[in-house]
Amino acid sequence: MKVLFVFAHPEKTSFNHSLLDAAVKHLEAQGNEVKVSDLYNMNWKSNVDEEDFLNHEKGSRLKVAEASFIANAGNKLTDDVVEEQEKLKWADTVIFQFPVWWFSMPAILKGWFDRVFACGFAYGVGVHDETHYGDRYGEGTMEGKRAFCMVTTGGSNDHYSKRGINGSIDDILFPINHGMLFYPGFTVLPPVVTYRTDSKREEVYANAEKAVLERMDNLSTVEPINYRKQNFGDYNIPEMTLKEGLEQPGQTHFDIHIKKD
Amino acid sequence: MKVLFVFAHPEKTSFNHSLLDAAVKHLEAQGNEVKVSDLYNMNWKSNVDEEDFLNHEKGSRLKVAEASFIANAGNKLTDDVVEEQEKLKWADTVIFQFPVWWFSMPAILKGWFDRVFACGFAYGVGVHDETHYGDRYGEGTMEGKRAFCMVTTGGSNDHYSKRGINGSIDDILFPINHGMLFYPGFTVLPPVVTYRTDSKREEVYANAEKAVLERMDNLSTVEPINYRKQNFGDYNIPEMTLKEGLEQPGQTHFDIHIKKD
Repeated sequence: MKVLFVFAHPEKTSFNHSLLDAAVKHLEAQGNEVKVSDLYNMNWKSNVDEEDFLNHEKGSRLKVAEASFIANAGNKLTDDVVEEQEKLKWADTVIFQFPVWWFSMPAILKGWFDRVFACGFAYGVGVHDETHYGDRYGEGTMEGKRAFCMVTTGGSNDHYSKRGINGSIDDILFPINHGMLFYPGFTVLPPVVTYRTDSKREEVYANAEKAVLERMDNLSTVEPINYRKQNFGDYNIPEMTLKEGLEQPGQTHFDIHIKKD
Repeated sequence: MKVLFVFAHPEKTSFNHSLLDAAVKHLEAQGNEVKVSDLYNMNWKSNVDEEDFLNHEKGSRLKVAEASFIANAGNKLTDDVVEEQEKLKWADTVIFQFPVWWFSMPAILKGWFDRVFACGFAYGVGVHDETHYGDRYGEGTMEGKRAFCMVTTGGSNDHYSKRGINGSIDDILFPINHGMLFYPGFTVLPPVVTYRTDSKREEVYANAEKAVLERMDNLSTVEPINYRKQNFGDYNIPEMTLKEGLEQPGQTHFDIHIKKD
């Protein structure tokens, strides 16, 4: 397999970096090819601005999606972005590894998505009209590739449980799993989550590494999250609302977008 | 009133910036004091790293929460972060204005939260033990202040409706409204959302500005989102799970954390 890690933690001796090292070593020992985008180490530029679009006239009005589309189509994105897009094309499996900060990803990783997921590459793909609103949510550039999140949290699993005060981890990660990974076509595997990494580090680490290595062994067999594809009859067009009656009794909120039989 | 805008858009002639200008002008005309943190204009540093903590020994292991706590307690955060914290202390109303990119905020704004919301300032406040897990979710440094999001989206309101393929806008914004604003103690007002800003700009803009100015007139009277406070009996401690039977029939997922009578 060809596995790309997109990794976001500032500290080389961190809990997260140790997990990364263990995962990479394990995969390579089994003959897989691995690439790592260690965003802090790369000094990744996070903030979208006019410098990102080499054919944008400096100082003229920047319409981000339009400038992104034109630059992507004309091969005028910056080298750092193009390199990441090439890694994505190369990989069959992409792992986004980060600590959950403020119920989302660190800014440096958000900036990776904001810049690498260009218009025409990860969104704005395919026809957009009254009968077809893009090749997205199950189709697109990343179709046929797997992706998932490997995350750590300070809070406990109770805090992120179904009735937990933070909201459930599945709901917290939905805008990422569904909105950022399934959207450009990835097949999305369930996340690997380690809770309470700030306490009892040794004990928590041992279990976390075990879970991570187990996932590395099962990349090709673990069951994906069964998100409903946009363009195969489940959604009204052009409203893009789920047709009535498709969900199971009791399915509500984000959950209705997962097909359960 | 004392109103702080934290604004994240790279373009001075953008839809968002026009709304900002209109809102600021309107508030000032009525005698309110206004400050604007225009993050792109400030060239805001987004990425948390060891440079953020002036008493952190360079090259030694960086444990982010710990380093943040020590720097915050010892007045060793960087000037840019301290200035933002001072603005927050000054304000009675804070408005986070941004375009929704990938179902969240632009990286530059996420980096504002990651850095300004230091440990001991916005989290890690109060006692953390088996009987009290911090002054958070309704208590904390921001208690008594209002905050809300003013956002724009490319997709239509249907796409963000209850059955919309993106997930509902309320669920998409929950990790921000509840996890980033209610958490440090803000009273959270409903968001002001403008959909489909990329199409029919003139028409959409006129309605958007009207909605924004109406909100500016009603900052002190609009009904907040009635999130349940953590430490007033609704949650089991230390699990921090909502006690059984408190939600209304049909309330599930994020929604159970909103008290409805």
